[in-house]
Amino acid sequence: MKTKLETKIIAEPGRMDVSIVREFHAPRELVFNAHADPELIRQWLGPKKYDVNIHHYNSKSGGSYRYSVVDKNGKTVASFNGAIHEVTAPERIIQTFEFEGLPERGHVTLDCTTFESLPGNRTRVTVHSVCRSQADRDAMMASGMESGINDGYDKLDELLTKL
Amino acid sequence: MKTKLETKIIAEPGRMDVSIVREFHAPRELVFNAHADPELIRQWLGPKKYDVNIHHYNSKSGGSYRYSVVDKNGKTVASFNGAIHEVTAPERIIQTFEFEGLPERGHVTLDCTTFESLPGNRTRVTVHSVCRSQADRDAMMASGMESGINDGYDKLDELLTKL
Repeated sequence: MKTKLETKIIAEPGRMDVSIVREFHAPRELVFNAHADPELIRQWLGPKKYDVNIHHYNSKSGGSYRYSVVDKNGKTVASFNGAIHEVTAPERIIQTFEFEGLPERGHVTLDCTTFESLPGNRTRVTVHSVCRSQADRDAMMASGMESGINDGYDKLDELLTKL
Repeated sequence: MKTKLETKIIAEPGRMDVSIVREFHAPRELVFNAHADPELIRQWLGPKKYDVNIHHYNSKSGGSYRYSVVDKNGKTVASFNGAIHEVTAPERIIQTFEFEGLPERGHVTLDCTTFESLPGNRTRVTVHSVCRSQADRDAMMASGMESGINDGYDKLDELLTKL
């Protein structure tokens, strides 16, 4: 039986960035595809109790995306959008990210997701997010994002066994 | 006669961001347009001794751009590209930025340019660039970017008198 894998969130005090590290029991190409193919992203991203509705997702360098998290009645809970700087299969995705529910716009992060092959057909995913200020970073950490990330990665574990 | 305006570059030690602040003797709409319209950008961006060749510039939220700085013989000196997160006229542009001449790719910055109206038909432009690390920020500061920025803003002063 495979070990349950843990998500590490590294946010040092006084900095404006955060790193999220998680391993998966699947080869790099599969894990990368689950982050780059909108139809696969839709199946695992976000909290377990919600669905994801993708408005557009042009998954390539110079592309952009927008999606919403919706409840079981189809009501939008939160929306997110960004511009995609780089998609390099199966190594790296660099994009901007903005949560649309804040009182003012412009609290954007620059997210670099890297995919490393590990022995035993495992893959390490590292999301390095840089905020525009330390206050933005601290607000993001306090937003309860951790449970959404853990839920999403649990769903991704399941999805990867099917791919 | 109008005062010659100075560019302030603020890069505190130990941080991963830099702010570039410059005022212009022109109303906000004009200064904004000179940053959003590719045909105008081409006329002022970069060092005085070079021209700018725009490969594509889709100046809107979710767009992207790529341009080169070329010498008088048309030889490419440096190329740059990015994804455009937000264009909100005449207030703000948020985009990624990457210099393609580094030994490895991925040293991307998140740049937020804001345009503030000041008394006397002046405009303050602030470019806040966030790097992915302190080392990236320090390397950018050491790259000689300052003279390129000053040259560009001098050309922009001239262009604004014609618009």
